[in-house]
Amino acid sequence: MYDLIIIGGGPAGITAGIYAARQKLNTLLITKDFGGQMARKAVPIENYPGFERISGMDLIQNFEKHLRKQKIDIENNSVIKVERTVDKFLVLTDNKNQFEGRAVIVASGADPRPLEVPGEKEFIGKGVSYCIACDAPLFSEKTVAVVGGGNAGFEAAIALVKWSKAIYILEYNPQVKADKKNQIRAKETGKIKIITNAALKEIKGKQFVESLVYEDRKSKESKNLKVEGIFVEIGSQPATSFIKNLVDFTDRDEIVIDTKTCATKTEGLFACGDVTDVKYKQIIIAAGEGAKAAFSAYFYLRDSV
Amino acid sequence: MYDLIIIGGGPAGITAGIYAARQKLNTLLITKDFGGQMARKAVPIENYPGFERISGMDLIQNFEKHLRKQKIDIENNSVIKVERTVDKFLVLTDNKNQFEGRAVIVASGADPRPLEVPGEKEFIGKGVSYCIACDAPLFSEKTVAVVGGGNAGFEAAIALVKWSKAIYILEYNPQVKADKKNQIRAKETGKIKIITNAALKEIKGKQFVESLVYEDRKSKESKNLKVEGIFVEIGSQPATSFIKNLVDFTDRDEIVIDTKTCATKTEGLFACGDVTDVKYKQIIIAAGEGAKAAFSAYFYLRDSV
Repeated sequence: MYDLIIIGGGPAGITAGIYAARQKLNTLLITKDFGGQMARKAVPIENYPGFERISGMDLIQNFEKHLRKQKIDIENNSVIKVERTVDKFLVLTDNKNQFEGRAVIVASGADPRPLEVPGEKEFIGKGVSYCIACDAPLFSEKTVAVVGGGNAGFEAAIALVKWSKAIYILEYNPQVKADKKNQIRAKETGKIKIITNAALKEIKGKQFVESLVYEDRKSKESKNLKVEGIFVEIGSQPATSFIKNLVDFTDRDEIVIDTKTCATKTEGLFACGDVTDVKYKQIIIAAGEGAKAAFSAYFYLRDSV
Repeated sequence: MYDLIIIGGGPAGITAGIYAARQKLNTLLITKDFGGQMARKAVPIENYPGFERISGMDLIQNFEKHLRKQKIDIENNSVIKVERTVDKFLVLTDNKNQFEGRAVIVASGADPRPLEVPGEKEFIGKGVSYCIACDAPLFSEKTVAVVGGGNAGFEAAIALVKWSKAIYILEYNPQVKADKKNQIRAKETGKIKIITNAALKEIKGKQFVESLVYEDRKSKESKNLKVEGIFVEIGSQPATSFIKNLVDFTDRDEIVIDTKTCATKTEGLFACGDVTDVKYKQIIIAAGEGAKAAFSAYFYLRDSV
């Protein structure tokens, strides 16, 4: 039985792991992979204090190395369920392993929000991607679309410029939401075309993506766009499928926490980072919240013996 | 007139500065020096994610370099007063400069808690020190005392081993509070003697410290200890002298904030890091709080035009 099981390997989970191990808690960290949303960042990170400019991948590697320096067990897997018994938690992973812990920290972050249109699921890995940093090179000399006109969408489009032949940004609203700076940079590339008022309806193709269909929300016309790749950048949603009954949720599906301590409504169960209702979602904030959750778990364990 | 004035150059203030500048706020950061409590750390920092082990000084330099990469004004001075007028804040520094800002973030951290015994103030810089990292080399081959038996006191004593001839740790309580690990390391050095139940009464000397007087709280005897240096490690207190009327305080003199937003009771005035009632005081947490305060100031300014 572990003192503490941490679920998630992004900035919040890793920091919680570093702090828990340094408090000499017998700790297991479960994550499918390390980095969370950092791994999908299209542009270098310039706002994690101490590193003026670092790629998401490099920062993840630093974090993971730092974590592995500690005395901590790591299980590479997905959690499918957390249960509370009288005196402990049971954590189940999708390879049917079951782990026991006296306390749990949920730091499972957020996943990309899906489009939920016909063809999306079918073409994942066959032209539909949620990770610009992973998949941009696959679209060398191809025409692609980025769905979402916020900063993430624009940064994805700008990152694609050095690979793709032509890039469309599809924005649902009449105006894009990206910063002026990103709009200017996109324009300067000469390769990015912005389509506003575009409601995506369907993704089409045989073996791979060949086109998309969207409705022009102004003219109500249905339009066809020939693209071989579609990058989805319409925000994210908290990853909480495994923890339905033990916590309360906001209307955005975030886990409600006591902001001072990262406690949830279930004693011994803490949550931190982008999976929670923390007001701002940032790497440095998630890391700070991870440290808070680890301290709170430590005091909980110390006082509940 | 600035959009935002940030007071403090520790992890919270620096992170707030990086974030504010990236939000294109016209920002002034006022600090006497950079680093805050990091600058006084006796041992390397091993719990700031991304750096497995780094000296306080090196981490400060990374932070400061990162900050100076931004478009931000920096004033090296101490703030002595913050005033609220109808539509702005006035910030006064001890060289009689006055700055105007539409919003203010207080990130002034915490100062070492003084002993408050006769002789203390008189011998500052003449044997009495609050900064092991700054002053340890001055006590080469000398006998010194560290006041405070917590982790900071033990870490200071252990750091002094390579300089000083003999080191006393004076602890007021019957037992020291330091971790077992630090106690074992201190014992292994063979140079550190621990005196518990010691109530410091006076610091004596002519030009420099020559001895200290303490009461043995068990036997009630007054005892004299020949030491040439005294390091004070009895905790810290929030640095809030300049901001008395605009905020509420806890009974530990911490500024009360809304934990979600870092707002204080005065509109447009935010606070973050160790100067606040944030539950845990850590570099990574202070940095995260600094980012929160900067976002909150940004939204305040945007919405109050």
